[in-house]
Amino acid sequence: MPQNILVIGASGLIGSAVADTLEDRGHRVVRASRSTGERVDLRDADSLAALFSRIGPLDAVVTAVGSVPFKPVSELTGDDFRAGFDDKTLGQISVAALAATELRDGGSITVTTGILDGHPVPTGAAASVANGALNAYVRAAAPYLPRGLRINAISPNVLREATGYHASFPGFTPVPAADVARAYADVIEGDGTGAVISV
Amino acid sequence: MPQNILVIGASGLIGSAVADTLEDRGHRVVRASRSTGERVDLRDADSLAALFSRIGPLDAVVTAVGSVPFKPVSELTGDDFRAGFDDKTLGQISVAALAATELRDGGSITVTTGILDGHPVPTGAAASVANGALNAYVRAAAPYLPRGLRINAISPNVLREATGYHASFPGFTPVPAADVARAYADVIEGDGTGAVISV
Repeated sequence: MPQNILVIGASGLIGSAVADTLEDRGHRVVRASRSTGERVDLRDADSLAALFSRIGPLDAVVTAVGSVPFKPVSELTGDDFRAGFDDKTLGQISVAALAATELRDGGSITVTTGILDGHPVPTGAAASVANGALNAYVRAAAPYLPRGLRINAISPNVLREATGYHASFPGFTPVPAADVARAYADVIEGDGTGAVISV
Repeated sequence: MPQNILVIGASGLIGSAVADTLEDRGHRVVRASRSTGERVDLRDADSLAALFSRIGPLDAVVTAVGSVPFKPVSELTGDDFRAGFDDKTLGQISVAALAATELRDGGSITVTTGILDGHPVPTGAAASVANGALNAYVRAAAPYLPRGLRINAISPNVLREATGYHASFPGFTPVPAADVARAYADVIEGDGTGAVISV
């Protein structure tokens, strides 16, 4: 059944692939980001609330946002860890929290973490922390969402299209963004909740 | 071989049991906390640096600190998540980061997370996030510590002695603090690194 789906971060590599895939599958997609489409700034609660109220009833929301500092572990400061946590972790949690009251019954929330939760690379500790925190939120929050709502995390590998990152991840086999996007469609159309799905 | 070991959070149930167990095993233990023994405030980098410089060379440091807000998921705000992250996650990361330059070669860092990373309870999402973030840090940082230094996390179950919490964790089998303390001794005297050890 076609769903009304909000994709936040739709100007990014993952978000745009997810939006394309969902449209191809017959869903109605609202594309939002900081700079294109429906505008939203997740650091501003009013901006997020305004987005939800102006686009009308939704069955699902996807977030694929968040930047994190990349530095050697010995150079990462408390402010670096906090910046990644605020942007990637709390940014997506803020959407999930609002979605929990705004989505239609039985709707779904899908957030984006990343392979660096489990696979160390020399400059990735702040990303690991942000991802580990968000994965933990998904597992912790899922059983307590109201009205049959679901929440899941997609944890993508390095993307084939993100060639600039490949040298930093020599042990990883990059995956096409379209493959990652299908994982989002699968959890949105499925029944699972509280899962962290590696792609 | 006896080690010089700093235990931060030594006035708490876990920290005091760890300090006792380490002394019983012949180690020299410096007990530190916000309120007793050697004083330290982990929110203050100068306080932490002063502690390390006044107690002399160390082989190991243990942290068993951090408070996190407990509330239903629907009531947790961004500030609640940030408070738990700052206190439990960044507080312990700040010690690990300083220890990475101050410990003797081959020394060890042991941090404390908790079972709520993986087992949801209704009011535990901020604790899960703080624990998940810190577990991720341990896995991400371990391979890149200099001079043979090691880092591990102990993830304790509900403690038998913390009877006030038992009603909130009906599905858990409480463990004695002394059993948890032995897990710290085991990783401090052992060779492992990058591990999250559930007790």
